[in-house]
Amino acid sequence: MIVELGAKSYEIKIARGLLDACGSAIGRISSAAKAAVVSDDRVFPLYGERVVQSLIRSGFQVQKIVVPQGEGSKSGAMLNHMYGALADFGLSRDDLLVTLGGGVVGDLGGLAAATFMRGVPYVQIPTTLLAQVDSSVGGKVAIDLPQGKNLVGAFYQPKLVLIDPDVLTTLEPRVLHDGLAEVIKYGCIKDGSIFSCLEDVAGDRELLAGAEQIIEKSCSIKAAIVAEDEFDRGQRMVLNFGHTLGHGVEKAGAYSRFTHGEGVALGMLSITRATEKMGITASGTAARMEKLLEKFNLPTRCEYPLPELMSSMGLDKKRRGDRITLAVIESIGRGKLLEVPLADLQKYFVV
Amino acid sequence: MIVELGAKSYEIKIARGLLDACGSAIGRISSAAKAAVVSDDRVFPLYGERVVQSLIRSGFQVQKIVVPQGEGSKSGAMLNHMYGALADFGLSRDDLLVTLGGGVVGDLGGLAAATFMRGVPYVQIPTTLLAQVDSSVGGKVAIDLPQGKNLVGAFYQPKLVLIDPDVLTTLEPRVLHDGLAEVIKYGCIKDGSIFSCLEDVAGDRELLAGAEQIIEKSCSIKAAIVAEDEFDRGQRMVLNFGHTLGHGVEKAGAYSRFTHGEGVALGMLSITRATEKMGITASGTAARMEKLLEKFNLPTRCEYPLPELMSSMGLDKKRRGDRITLAVIESIGRGKLLEVPLADLQKYFVV
Repeated sequence: MIVELGAKSYEIKIARGLLDACGSAIGRISSAAKAAVVSDDRVFPLYGERVVQSLIRSGFQVQKIVVPQGEGSKSGAMLNHMYGALADFGLSRDDLLVTLGGGVVGDLGGLAAATFMRGVPYVQIPTTLLAQVDSSVGGKVAIDLPQGKNLVGAFYQPKLVLIDPDVLTTLEPRVLHDGLAEVIKYGCIKDGSIFSCLEDVAGDRELLAGAEQIIEKSCSIKAAIVAEDEFDRGQRMVLNFGHTLGHGVEKAGAYSRFTHGEGVALGMLSITRATEKMGITASGTAARMEKLLEKFNLPTRCEYPLPELMSSMGLDKKRRGDRITLAVIESIGRGKLLEVPLADLQKYFVV
Repeated sequence: MIVELGAKSYEIKIARGLLDACGSAIGRISSAAKAAVVSDDRVFPLYGERVVQSLIRSGFQVQKIVVPQGEGSKSGAMLNHMYGALADFGLSRDDLLVTLGGGVVGDLGGLAAATFMRGVPYVQIPTTLLAQVDSSVGGKVAIDLPQGKNLVGAFYQPKLVLIDPDVLTTLEPRVLHDGLAEVIKYGCIKDGSIFSCLEDVAGDRELLAGAEQIIEKSCSIKAAIVAEDEFDRGQRMVLNFGHTLGHGVEKAGAYSRFTHGEGVALGMLSITRATEKMGITASGTAARMEKLLEKFNLPTRCEYPLPELMSSMGLDKKRRGDRITLAVIESIGRGKLLEVPLADLQKYFVV
């Protein structure tokens, strides 16, 4: 499928076994001499050599840059380390950066690509469901600050995204479900059929068997929204459904207790409980959502008091002066934006 | 004057006394609540309070961020420091960053603006001639790496540039001449009349008296070139005239012995001596250039051996695989691009 962004359009290829063919796929869109492969120390031992060898077979000179696994690598210090490694490799503006990993690697490597030499081309090979259905569309790359997540970054589109659903089989169930929360979100805001489809799935094995379709559908939904609003100033904010409280939950848990998807799950449910009471959302929606989240072991309650979660959202980029834009749903499949005064924000969450 | 870049177009205002009116000028283009003023510890004591007070009078909540003067501040560590200060100030995407200073402050602050929250609006108040005639047009922002200058950065346009030529009176002569080298470059590549005009100027006092016109003309030339090639992949490279060897000279002198303009002066002259011998440039051009550079105490010889300078250019962004694009002139006012094999590069410089 193609993500339509004018001159910045790019293809997302989804196919089992694609890892071993990545070199030729990349060779078709790039005349780079050098390719820097950015990965982490969990993913590289599993899949790194297959990618490196495929790139070498296609004539690329390859340098791997492996960072420690985990959110801690999305730091200014690690970004500076990346810059040094790229400079030492002698990467030029016509060369290429390849990210192989989950969201952390994609975000960190993508921001390095966006800023090294004022921008070098990059290809994403996302290896978690979350990265495949979320990070691979939209061009958002970032690092964290001690003050908050994703506070430094860029909008920078890859030249190509290669998704091999076979890599999902090595994910721990909790990491798989982390990504599934975003798939459920797409169902909530845009496509009731993907939501129903997940309601019908028996469990993880059946989920993995149908992964290609789920990924393709999810990427298509996100691509359609992003194409309308590349720089996230308008309708794209509907993708933030579940994320406002979700970020608060992640931060309250010091980014270690809850995954991103678990935060989003709690965020979707808590805002929908509130809007359902307000009459904004069709009745019964929160209960249906709760049941689906529970099936995939996603959390539906958290014990943090709301005021603590509120203060953890403080620096959220969705703030505009003294107002904030919230993504809510009217029913499963119908998301919309509400602009509310910051002072009223607390009313929109029931945890 | 307007720099025409479609939706990213912005105005450059040039007027004596503009510092004290910056708040109202900025208020006309921004509804920000907060303004972070980035400056250095040489410029802020001279002009900072005038800018801060003007912003406060126009209703902005102001936070100053003052970095040490000098190229050393264009570092990853200082950029991270800036991010922390902006986050602590609670700057949002609808707020504003104002850079007050020379190229270092503009580059560092501009890159912080380009990447904090994936981009916040910024206004430049350049206080050196170099920053006024060069950095204020083009949107190039960057920091240095130990491996080379400007290796990390972005293309990010300001919302407004405010130039007060009165600030030039507090520059040391050498810093004034630093910027003049870029003005001479504009004359060389695009406009023989500005070159002749500088040949007719008696000295610095007369130069300062006519600064408004010189700045306006220089910005116009650069703006016309940048408008054709925002992302520096084609004709914009003619602006690199003098910069290939120039960067080598700066690096060989550890970025402390020669100013940027001094490097460019040496670079323009050395390549023109070579191309004149090759018959690419009209005869007598190098001699005329040398005379003008000498009048403003810009260097015309350096004792670094050419191989040392060549190795210092190694990571230059003008490289494309095994070829490099060089900017040369056919005569005063007529620049053009030559693509040459890296292996032949040495022939193009006579130091």
